[in-house]
Amino acid sequence: MASSVNPPRGMRDFLPADKAQRERVLGVIRNTFRSHGFDEIETPVMEDSDRLHAGLGGDNEKLAFAVMKRALTTDDLQAAEQPLDLADLGLRFDLTVPLARFYASHRGELPTVFRSIQIGAVWRAERPQKGRYRQFMQCDIDIIGEAGPIAEVELITATVATIDALGLDGCSIRINDRRLLTSALELLGFPPKEHEPVLVTIDKLDKIGHDGVITELRDRGFPAGPVDALDDFFTRPVTTQLTTQAPPFGEAAIRRLLPEGVDPVAVTELAAIGVAATRVVGRDVVQFDPWLVRGMGYYTGTIFEVAHPSVSYSLGGGGRYDGMIGRFLGSDVPAVGFSLGFERLVELVELEGPEGADAVALIHDPAMSPTALLTLKAAIVADGRRVRVERRPKNVKPLLDQLVAAGFGSYAFVDESTATPEFRQLG
Amino acid sequence: MASSVNPPRGMRDFLPADKAQRERVLGVIRNTFRSHGFDEIETPVMEDSDRLHAGLGGDNEKLAFAVMKRALTTDDLQAAEQPLDLADLGLRFDLTVPLARFYASHRGELPTVFRSIQIGAVWRAERPQKGRYRQFMQCDIDIIGEAGPIAEVELITATVATIDALGLDGCSIRINDRRLLTSALELLGFPPKEHEPVLVTIDKLDKIGHDGVITELRDRGFPAGPVDALDDFFTRPVTTQLTTQAPPFGEAAIRRLLPEGVDPVAVTELAAIGVAATRVVGRDVVQFDPWLVRGMGYYTGTIFEVAHPSVSYSLGGGGRYDGMIGRFLGSDVPAVGFSLGFERLVELVELEGPEGADAVALIHDPAMSPTALLTLKAAIVADGRRVRVERRPKNVKPLLDQLVAAGFGSYAFVDESTATPEFRQLG
Repeated sequence: MASSVNPPRGMRDFLPADKAQRERVLGVIRNTFRSHGFDEIETPVMEDSDRLHAGLGGDNEKLAFAVMKRALTTDDLQAAEQPLDLADLGLRFDLTVPLARFYASHRGELPTVFRSIQIGAVWRAERPQKGRYRQFMQCDIDIIGEAGPIAEVELITATVATIDALGLDGCSIRINDRRLLTSALELLGFPPKEHEPVLVTIDKLDKIGHDGVITELRDRGFPAGPVDALDDFFTRPVTTQLTTQAPPFGEAAIRRLLPEGVDPVAVTELAAIGVAATRVVGRDVVQFDPWLVRGMGYYTGTIFEVAHPSVSYSLGGGGRYDGMIGRFLGSDVPAVGFSLGFERLVELVELEGPEGADAVALIHDPAMSPTALLTLKAAIVADGRRVRVERRPKNVKPLLDQLVAAGFGSYAFVDESTATPEFRQLG
Repeated sequence: MASSVNPPRGMRDFLPADKAQRERVLGVIRNTFRSHGFDEIETPVMEDSDRLHAGLGGDNEKLAFAVMKRALTTDDLQAAEQPLDLADLGLRFDLTVPLARFYASHRGELPTVFRSIQIGAVWRAERPQKGRYRQFMQCDIDIIGEAGPIAEVELITATVATIDALGLDGCSIRINDRRLLTSALELLGFPPKEHEPVLVTIDKLDKIGHDGVITELRDRGFPAGPVDALDDFFTRPVTTQLTTQAPPFGEAAIRRLLPEGVDPVAVTELAAIGVAATRVVGRDVVQFDPWLVRGMGYYTGTIFEVAHPSVSYSLGGGGRYDGMIGRFLGSDVPAVGFSLGFERLVELVELEGPEGADAVALIHDPAMSPTALLTLKAAIVADGRRVRVERRPKNVKPLLDQLVAAGFGSYAFVDESTATPEFRQLG
């Protein structure tokens, strides 16, 4: 057959070693989230098209794969005014929009405060590039129905515990509040309608630096007064210091990094979250970052990202989106969530496999009968071990190397007369 | 918002109790397959459209959800001659076609005989009806690269072990061989070109009975001679007996149920599989069923289905498809696989949850600070228990009932002054 046998562009096959590692990491994540009182749910990978395109997914909506209506005719093609007229379903681009739809559908069957786990793939039709895929896994926890800071602290605690359990010690949570951003921009002199476009540029701070942000804002033609004020703000010693050193938490510390008079309620609430999280986790885990933006427009309060000293990119992030569920339910329900970037995590984690001494290979004489061979195998499996059978090749060395690479701990040669296999260590 | 908050038609949400049960069952299946030497892999949920529609999926190909090309314009709509011209990807309708594509792509990185596990969702755009969904899970094991009966015996052994491990004792495997069907039809007088259409009707034997099959064959206009011969065959005492009693296995037993002179190679090989599987499993697990058909046209040899005394439908099935991988690879590789129908299994299985004594609820005073509450929680989580926090309502009874229903084993009331929670049994 002439055509390629590769997976579709931007999507991946996982071979046994990779798949085993992915399942081990998912197991740790799932168990840690569960131990913190979250409950796993599942929704279909597809949602109705009008739901995916309801304006809740930000830029990701444009990246949704559209699934064609069934039984389309050529007449339908001619009658369609635009491509999406031919689609009634789409693949989810995140797990948050489906969760809001799920909660609206099942509210009566869920606890008053519902703590959800969702572990699943999402799809985005992005231009494939290194480290960016068209199908990738997300691991989300969300707390729905809790307006107070306890929700943020539970999320932070569960997230830090999970990353610790994966052996990636020393993560920290960068935290901010959308209300502080809005309030600060207003105090710097930006009119409200410019807040969103200005934040798009500030969101690039990690990549282009303070000077880059100021240059881009000037280039995009924002008024000189507020941009100068922001520039002045960026160059204050206490602010530039932030990139290398976390400030101590607390209301005074937050205020020191922001224009005078910034939203006092948001300051108090954010400080409470920071102080409580630090005490519960038992180390200085939260860093206030006054210019953390997070791309999604649906955030209404706290926003956060996981940082880890070994990498420059974030390992996950989230925030409070008190307005979204109301879009599905008709009445507002507070909600806050956190999404771990599984694909980034799994590359960093070194976990020991469950193989080793418990995985054995029976290398059998080619003439051995299936009955004799598989009866031996069944007895060893019943002993709680994992068994692979291999036909004995002329040259055994490459096979033994393969078995070592696949994590097997020992092997035995067996033939029709073998009553008890004699195992030898591998590797 | 006016539109429905339900999942798309024919697809399901899973609430926490259902999701936990599904994950537990998947865990048992995954671990049992692994212990029998199979290795899990994963492919993307989508495949290139021309690959899904290469004639390997039988009727299921027509049920594939088509995914639209990116950046379609209205000109593309006008230019399209048929709907599929607008799709370049599709959702997989089974796990076998992706496996063949995967194997062709990665053969050099896999063991000579590769035993794969695939656990994942598939999608079929069928008319939704009771027990039939548009998204559902399959659990497949396949052995690629082994032409001999050892492959069938390993698959049968692993499948029976898995169903036993799920607590569904007493399953049996109905087995047949495509070559026997072909040979028998030929001996009864059906010309080769009529074999496939005749098998479509014989495949309904479980539903419409012997008389129904004969009537349908007459109605469809097949020649009277061979249909009479088949009817005569159906009414022989030894054949009708099969529906209530399994025949003893062995070459003679197989021959007794088929027209004289049936393919002797297929008889010998099938008998060898049956005898070996019975010895390895240690009980009379295999039943020869001379009229088992299995719908897929790609089967070339052995075919099987799992039967269980508690249900009339099969819990899974599979067969040998030695020709398929060659379609992708260019050279033939023997292959045989087995697919468990997860949705049917999960409804039958009663597994105990991992909850109980280890899952506790902290019911807290509404005024309690997040720091105090979540510090208590963290200490109990660190002890290896699962903890849910709940704000104390005016009426505690409904909350306690909910906790019992959710599988929690005990609870404690806590407030700001609590140093050590006093747990009480639930339920």
